[in-house]
Amino acid sequence: MRVVRTDLRVRYSETDQMGIVYHANYLVWFEIGRTEWCRAAGYPYADMERAGFFIPVTRIEGTFRRSSSYDDPIAIFTRMERLSSRGCTFAYDILSPDGAVLADGSTQHIFTDAQGRACRGSDEILGALERFRSAESPG
Amino acid sequence: MRVVRTDLRVRYSETDQMGIVYHANYLVWFEIGRTEWCRAAGYPYADMERAGFFIPVTRIEGTFRRSSSYDDPIAIFTRMERLSSRGCTFAYDILSPDGAVLADGSTQHIFTDAQGRACRGSDEILGALERFRSAESPG
Amino acid sequence: MRVVRTDLRVRYSETDQMGIVYHANYLVWFEIGRTEWCRAAGYPYADMERAGFFIPVTRIEGTFRRSSSYDDPIAIFTRMERLSSRGCTFAYDILSPDGAVLADGSTQHIFTDAQGRACRGSDEILGALERFRSAESPG
Amino acid sequence: MRVVRTDLRVRYSETDQMGIVYHANYLVWFEIGRTEWCRAAGYPYADMERAGFFIPVTRIEGTFRRSSSYDDPIAIFTRMERLSSRGCTFAYDILSPDGAVLADGSTQHIFTDAQGRACRGSDEILGALERFRSAESPG
Repeated sequence: MRVVRTDLRVRYSETDQMGIVYHANYLVWFEIGRTEWCRAAGYPYADMERAGFFIPVTRIEGTFRRSSSYDDPIAIFTRMERLSSRGCTFAYDILSPDGAVLADGSTQHIFTDAQGRACRGSDEILGALERFRSAESPG
Repeated sequence: MRVVRTDLRVRYSETDQMGIVYHANYLVWFEIGRTEWCRAAGYPYADMERAGFFIPVTRIEGTFRRSSSYDDPIAIFTRMERLSSRGCTFAYDILSPDGAVLADGSTQHIFTDAQGRACRGSDEILGALERFRSAESPG
Repeated sequence: MRVVRTDLRVRYSETDQMGIVYHANYLVWFEIGRTEWCRAAGYPYADMERAGFFIPVTRIEGTFRRSSSYDDPIAIFTRMERLSSRGCTFAYDILSPDGAVLADGSTQHIFTDAQGRACRGSDEILGALERFRSAESPG
Repeated sequence: MRVVRTDLRVRYSETDQMGIVYHANYLVWFEIGRTEWCRAAGYPYADMERAGFFIPVTRIEGTFRRSSSYDDPIAIFTRMERLSSRGCTFAYDILSPDGAVLADGSTQHIFTDAQGRACRGSDEILGALERFRSAESPG
């Protein structure tokens, strides 16, 4: 299964008064992982929306194993676990530079049109996503 | 000039690792003040957008005088300082319960249509906003 | 089981370009629900932290059933599903004014000291939380 | 004056229902610019805070000239306009890939200790910041 890596640094605005990253920001990082996964698959999500194809979130789950702090370098590893004509599931691991898993989780999505109505993905998009999804990751 | 008061409590998500409210959140509170000012004026901003009338921000300025902390009760005092056919300026004071000014600032806006093109406000909306804007505040 | 209701209005800043609330904001609303549940139980969370008792999130899950939009009035219903000496689980339902469930979910927490080390809750706090948790909700 | 460039992509979470970046997020980008300016100057801001030296924001101003959208590549150009023993001012330009200025602004800061009390910067830090601040930008 193809795994796409994205790197970022923790923003000051992402911390809270515990001195660590506020947990909801991990969902934002998951979304960044999806964005880069779609780009790597050849279908930038911005283009999908411009073509009238939306992938809203219907379910999330996440486990927080260690905290992260301002300015920490973070790596997001994203894969698409499941794809059907109606939706998909992404899974994520958030790692610190020393390889410790800070958090992991998944998001479920349905496909909708611009009016928010559930729809099927086109054969072209589904075929391309499936080919990328199930390919071996390099290295 | 009519001043509209809005009350809220500081959210945990609004704090940062200094243990105080992250400064950009004051702009969110300014926006909440605008929302409630427009509602008090009889034109909820959600209705304006549904009618194709948008009020994007073109300029902000703010001064932070004292910090605020999680769960603090905060009062936002909002007034419309200036109104023309092309845009408007709101001004804000953010107060702690004991009446200390935590922050103040202003936001400038233009009027646009749904495509983001600068436009004039309708006579009906401008008239209503001006009547409310320049009225005496009760008490 | 005691259920605490909290009301809010959707902020403009909470929307995204789909025109609906960005999903991570539901976690912020869950946190607001927790804050008000603790206050109703007689132990404001701000006081707990001042006393060196922290309740970080270790796991989240949420299901998004319907979208919500800017300025919508929203009700958060919060209950504490589980309490032990080491942690607790909160559960939430987010409702629209007409009673439709927009989202539901839960958060798991451990208790820690100010240095982030896992700890037991004091008998006094645990006793008070348990009495409130397991009480009948009024009406 | 030394100008430090930082690149990022607009996050989905940074958009609002106008379909563009919510204005308060430009302040977050300003902060990212500061972070990278301090790192380039040899004093990562995370290290400053660990050493008990804080630089909270006391004043902001910003002008929004053009909108930006999800997934747009953005460049932040940051310089330190003023430095004294008591505080400093940063200035920012936010540019699109074609060189258009999307927004510009500035933030004023004071120096404080960990308890939030105003303080003087040490000669070592002030000297290093001043040397970097007033140096020519390469190229």
